[in-house]
Amino acid sequence: MLYIGVDLGGTNIAVGVVDEKGNTIATASTRTLAKRPYQEVIRDMGRCALEALKKSGHDLDEVHSIGVGIPGVANPETGVVVFCTNLGWHDVPLRDELQKMINKPVFIDNDATVAGLAESLFGGSAGTHSSVFITLGTGVGGGIIIEGKPWSGFHGIGSEIGHITLVADGDMCTCGKAGCLERYCSATAIGRMGREAMKNHPESLIAANCGGNPDKMNAKVVIDAAKAGDQVACEVFNSYIKYLALAINTIISFFDPEVIVLGGGVSAAGPFLLEAINRELPKYILFKTLPYARIELAKLGPGAGIVGAAMLGK
Amino acid sequence: MLYIGVDLGGTNIAVGVVDEKGNTIATASTRTLAKRPYQEVIRDMGRCALEALKKSGHDLDEVHSIGVGIPGVANPETGVVVFCTNLGWHDVPLRDELQKMINKPVFIDNDATVAGLAESLFGGSAGTHSSVFITLGTGVGGGIIIEGKPWSGFHGIGSEIGHITLVADGDMCTCGKAGCLERYCSATAIGRMGREAMKNHPESLIAANCGGNPDKMNAKVVIDAAKAGDQVACEVFNSYIKYLALAINTIISFFDPEVIVLGGGVSAAGPFLLEAINRELPKYILFKTLPYARIELAKLGPGAGIVGAAMLGK
Repeated sequence: MLYIGVDLGGTNIAVGVVDEKGNTIATASTRTLAKRPYQEVIRDMGRCALEALKKSGHDLDEVHSIGVGIPGVANPETGVVVFCTNLGWHDVPLRDELQKMINKPVFIDNDATVAGLAESLFGGSAGTHSSVFITLGTGVGGGIIIEGKPWSGFHGIGSEIGHITLVADGDMCTCGKAGCLERYCSATAIGRMGREAMKNHPESLIAANCGGNPDKMNAKVVIDAAKAGDQVACEVFNSYIKYLALAINTIISFFDPEVIVLGGGVSAAGPFLLEAINRELPKYILFKTLPYARIELAKLGPGAGIVGAAMLGK
Repeated sequence: MLYIGVDLGGTNIAVGVVDEKGNTIATASTRTLAKRPYQEVIRDMGRCALEALKKSGHDLDEVHSIGVGIPGVANPETGVVVFCTNLGWHDVPLRDELQKMINKPVFIDNDATVAGLAESLFGGSAGTHSSVFITLGTGVGGGIIIEGKPWSGFHGIGSEIGHITLVADGDMCTCGKAGCLERYCSATAIGRMGREAMKNHPESLIAANCGGNPDKMNAKVVIDAAKAGDQVACEVFNSYIKYLALAINTIISFFDPEVIVLGGGVSAAGPFLLEAINRELPKYILFKTLPYARIELAKLGPGAGIVGAAMLGK
């Protein structure tokens, strides 16, 4: 059988036809244009699904189901998108609307959760008993997978790792709360810390690498300079790593999964990130002599969104 | 069938015979005397089990299994106590040793986890899909229950809620790490905050109620004075409630259980605690308009340890 996966983002709708083994055999995409009525956005999802299917050379008869990863909160049972900030969606009956076009079972879940599902099936946590996927991007998202199934909690609001409190009374988060994990562990956080460090260290490589322009400072600038051994960049990076290790320890102390997978923009730092975390994390682990979660890099890249969504129906 | 539950503490071994409905029909107990060889402690567990069974008027034939809640980390599969700080135990083959005396299936798990299991079967979270139990005592422990089964994680080190980081770079915890949740959310924390407040407010009711003696200050003194409307006590209590609400929000944001149950010494504050939490918690919830975990008080008291341990075998 084949599975259609839809990665619904604030900017683009990306759709793929995925086989049993998690290979994406054809894709199609279009702009989301989120300000349109939701019916139009969903119609474009359906259109892209049929387009990708045509490209794949297969028939609708061979499609088992359609899965959709959404940047918000879904109710997997009713197929309703409960809440989706950057689309302005509230109680949108996505399943019913999509089934008007394509009469197949439709499954929906949070985008980070479905990316975590893809990693747990075919990527960094493949074959594990339990895993937590963390996306370190503009924000911080999470996906909890238990025995191959996504866990989004009883009310569908779980795995929102970014808004765990890491520093009570700390810096203000975009959500309006102080001290959220996202404020310290996102790619955005590295860029912000880089900008602050650059002010006091105009001689640093991070300042040179963005031409002294704060608008050009980002996680990659800091990490590349840290890899090159720039002291200021290393200090920023190490400070970031401390927060990320504390966040990972929180997941271990509370949930103790078999594997924690790091994805999103920051994970592009690769083994440099992994080695830094594996040096820092043991400081915070409670039971020093016992085994704890292995930390892995995400393997599937941005395509995990399509693959994970597709696999919701498997 | 009947189930024997053993609550192994640093001070006492408490054993009960429990029926299918969670009623403890007979008990026996003895001192742990933790410095003895573990074989002697386990022999006393067995002795108490047989004594309680005799008191109950039932036969060993009617006993399905024995469950043991331990103050540490267990490997439920091997029946080995991996680590138990206040008993000084390390890799103790509890199951094998206990079966030398009583040839029945033996199950072991963490004490807070089994108390959470008891609450999820017969107490504050009875009949729920998923729950997290939090003990607010000398320290802070936790128990995660998913569909009626305890979740202790892949390596058996999960639900150690007390050592999640709540305040990065915060106050030092007894575990040697800075800013642990336990440091801010335990009964001990209220007492400590009370002692600090008393220094600056010798006129307060909390100072009067412990006769100005810092050694007599504890959570109950603060909470009783707060209930009586003492302003200094209310400030201490509200500060505690803020940290506890942040901690609860972390559990909701990450795991999103159906119910969170508050147990341990602080929960004796009853509805006064519950009302305070329900006022404070909504400030920190990410999705303001969506339902989230109900907060309940533990219903079973200290007996939950025996009942939950017994139910491990059910």
